[in-house]
Amino acid sequence: MFISFEGTEGVGKTTLIRKIYEHFQSQAQDVVLTREPGGTPMAEQIRDLLLAVNHEEQMCNDTELLLMYAARAQHIAQVIMPALEAGKIVLCDRFTDASFAYQCAGRGLSESKLQMLNEHFVSRMPDVTFWLDAPIELGMDRARARGALDRFEQEKVTFFEKVRSGYASLAMREPQRVKRLDATQSPEHVFTQAMNYL
Amino acid sequence: MFISFEGTEGVGKTTLIRKIYEHFQSQAQDVVLTREPGGTPMAEQIRDLLLAVNHEEQMCNDTELLLMYAARAQHIAQVIMPALEAGKIVLCDRFTDASFAYQCAGRGLSESKLQMLNEHFVSRMPDVTFWLDAPIELGMDRARARGALDRFEQEKVTFFEKVRSGYASLAMREPQRVKRLDATQSPEHVFTQAMNYL
Ligand SMILES: Nc1ncnc2c1ncn2[C@@H]1O[C@H](COP(=O)(O)OP(=O)(O)OP(=O)(O)O)[C@@H](O)[C@H]1O
Ligand SMILES: Nc1ncnc2c1ncn2[C@@H]1O[C@H](COP(=O)(O)OP(=O)(O)OP(=O)(O)O)[C@@H](O)[C@H]1O
Ligand SMILES: [Mg+2]
Ligand SMILES: [Mg+2]
Repeated sequence: MFISFEGTEGVGKTTLIRKIYEHFQSQAQDVVLTREPGGTPMAEQIRDLLLAVNHEEQMCNDTELLLMYAARAQHIAQVIMPALEAGKIVLCDRFTDASFAYQCAGRGLSESKLQMLNEHFVSRMPDVTFWLDAPIELGMDRARARGALDRFEQEKVTFFEKVRSGYASLAMREPQRVKRLDATQSPEHVFTQAMNYL
Repeated sequence: MFISFEGTEGVGKTTLIRKIYEHFQSQAQDVVLTREPGGTPMAEQIRDLLLAVNHEEQMCNDTELLLMYAARAQHIAQVIMPALEAGKIVLCDRFTDASFAYQCAGRGLSESKLQMLNEHFVSRMPDVTFWLDAPIELGMDRARARGALDRFEQEKVTFFEKVRSGYASLAMREPQRVKRLDATQSPEHVFTQAMNYL
């Protein structure tokens, strides 16, 4: 089983995924916790390029999209597919839906670019995707409390509103796979919502 | 005018491109010398990832291809298009043909992946491409004399034979654009061949 976790900054993805990881571990299930962009040493190097704040040179939208998929290709081949083939549960903090929400809905890149990248470079989609939804300001407040903001976190609220709408349209299009969770609630309550679906 | 320079390792691309650059400069023409992967600070960071020898984790073919196009997208947007729009001559040490020769012909990636990346992310092809052709061993001897070998240079001769065949098939397919130069000759003679075409 392959489960991904999505949502705007600071909404509680990492908090929820840890709870679910611990739950499966306590049941002695084989479970892998991983994240994107990243998940392998090489993909984490690509993540560093993606998140770095660079005042000298602006990263183009196409570059951002292609770096995401370079990291993803490595992650799928080295981590996700081997784990799934070994019968493990894979919990992934962000996956392809994040590219749709951030690069297409957020940055305005055409969906056809994303579609063909998915067709050619993503061999497996998640079985279930939890979309943690909450007002942007709520997540930003949580993220700000954590420290220095990365290149994405420095974006404006209007950008994140578009990202959130992107997730909303995905949940509409693929209701079987993408499950919305009310992320304004307490961590325990968000966890309960997720476990009810599973 | 946009001119790219292609060929297997150590065949003399950089040597030729410098001569042509100096030639245009001596004629007081506006000319930009650049290279791939790389050509902007950010794209050069991607180049470092691509060329690094990593014994812990093998880079997947898809990752390699997508990193090449991430660097290329940045390079096209930041350097190539602005220079061409300003009426400058752009001399580029490797471009998309290298992805065909190395990632498709060499690594065996499907051409359809490359085609769709070119369609979606490469807005401008070179007007002329010089393919410097020479037996693999000749270039490898020249490259070895230069010092430590990078991740590509460490490949076996059979890999480079495939890359060379890839360039040969491009020259067959696009004879108007891709011009073969005999790179076994002296630097001066290779330069004369190129200038005769131009
Ligand atoms: N349901 C919740 N209620 C209140 N606070 C929460 C909740 N979930 C997480 N938090 C807190 O909010 C902050 C951000 O949570 P977390 O790191 O899980 O978010 P995230 O979605 O993973 O963020 P990012 O997008 O930056 O990775 C943390 O300090 C966390 O403890
Ligand atoms: N026509 C030539 N005859 C003899 N030696 C040459 C010739 N062209 C280049 N060289 C020498 O061969 C070596 C490799 O040349 P160069 O760096 O130009 O090749 P390259 O194709 O750019 O290599 P790479 O693929 O590694 O970038 C250099 O030491 C250069 O001086
Ligand atoms: Mg997180
Ligand atoms: Mg060179």
